[in-house]
Amino acid sequence: MEQIFHEIKLNTNGQGLYDFTDQTISWVNKQKINNGILNINILHTSASLIIQENADPDVLHDLNCFFNKLVPMDNKIYQHTTEGKDDMPAHIKSALTNSQITLSIKNKKLMLGTWQGLYLFEHRIENHTRTLSHHLIGD
Amino acid sequence: MEQIFHEIKLNTNGQGLYDFTDQTISWVNKQKINNGILNINILHTSASLIIQENADPDVLHDLNCFFNKLVPMDNKIYQHTTEGKDDMPAHIKSALTNSQITLSIKNKKLMLGTWQGLYLFEHRIENHTRTLSHHLIGD
Amino acid sequence: MEQIFHEIKLNTNGQGLYDFTDQTISWVNKQKINNGILNINILHTSASLIIQENADPDVLHDLNCFFNKLVPMDNKIYQHTTEGKDDMPAHIKSALTNSQITLSIKNKKLMLGTWQGLYLFEHRIENHTRTLSHHLIGD
Repeated sequence: MEQIFHEIKLNTNGQGLYDFTDQTISWVNKQKINNGILNINILHTSASLIIQENADPDVLHDLNCFFNKLVPMDNKIYQHTTEGKDDMPAHIKSALTNSQITLSIKNKKLMLGTWQGLYLFEHRIENHTRTLSHHLIGD
Repeated sequence: MEQIFHEIKLNTNGQGLYDFTDQTISWVNKQKINNGILNINILHTSASLIIQENADPDVLHDLNCFFNKLVPMDNKIYQHTTEGKDDMPAHIKSALTNSQITLSIKNKKLMLGTWQGLYLFEHRIENHTRTLSHHLIGD
Repeated sequence: MEQIFHEIKLNTNGQGLYDFTDQTISWVNKQKINNGILNINILHTSASLIIQENADPDVLHDLNCFFNKLVPMDNKIYQHTTEGKDDMPAHIKSALTNSQITLSIKNKKLMLGTWQGLYLFEHRIENHTRTLSHHLIGD
């Protein structure tokens, strides 16, 4: 059983979903582990991770709209307002989605459904560089 | 350390929660792994996984009602409408819950609380067959 | 590859977020595993786990307020009311957040971002003792 650690950096320019499936698969393919667990963590609390449909971009648009409506950027309803009107909503959206995803690797292939992609969900308005830790354990 | 892969297929007939705890435990019991990690992934983006109370069926009913009210089936508020009025809400509900659950096995027993059960949360109206990948790693 | 199991008990006195980061790190530091996976499960369905900002206590306050507004304690809208007005909302809030978190350990350090802390999110009003199972697998 071996373990390999890796970081993927993603640049985001505003709210929305950023597909990193190919970057993760490309890295997994280069490792000598055929079967194992891949643990992905986002090291931030104002952006999050979800597995979502990779076919119709409208799905990504609708997801972003829904979360913006559910968690309004309205400083009047929050105490934590010093980091901008989008910061507290970002923390809430992160809590409503995920900070980490654990996937399985079988015969060097990431076990995802046909229509599943891996997305970083950026909740902040300004540009950010986000770090996703990848940890592969297997043999 | 060994690894075993397995798939459970669940037939769903409409929205709601489907308990698969017994199927997972029954499979775990047949394996030669005493201690380890069980990673369960649903290979779809319009149904999801949650751990919930297994005692009162009213809890399952109320959960389903809450999510239907929170994420309305109303084509006017979504761009992604070609796959039916329940499809975009299904993607959103999946994002609000989970696509995967990671559990621990100790002395061949799935570590769940007394009142915890494993549920597939179906968000589509029509009948579906859902695939849940099970990946056990341990010794 | 070794496996170690542990339980952390947390006493809660009402709704809100309880930081257990230090307890988890302190336990991890005492183990002989340098690199591995840490799987944390809460063995209850009316309290949950989230990774959140550890800097400004206002964030924790706003999170709690948001979830209380999103999931009202109003017996009229639920069928499951026998365990108190806060019980069904607690199950829903658990479904909206997480029952388990999987983290990576690298060089004996828990891989968390600078501003990330581990929180138990208590959704019940009265005092409870909550059990968090910790399962470390690695070498």
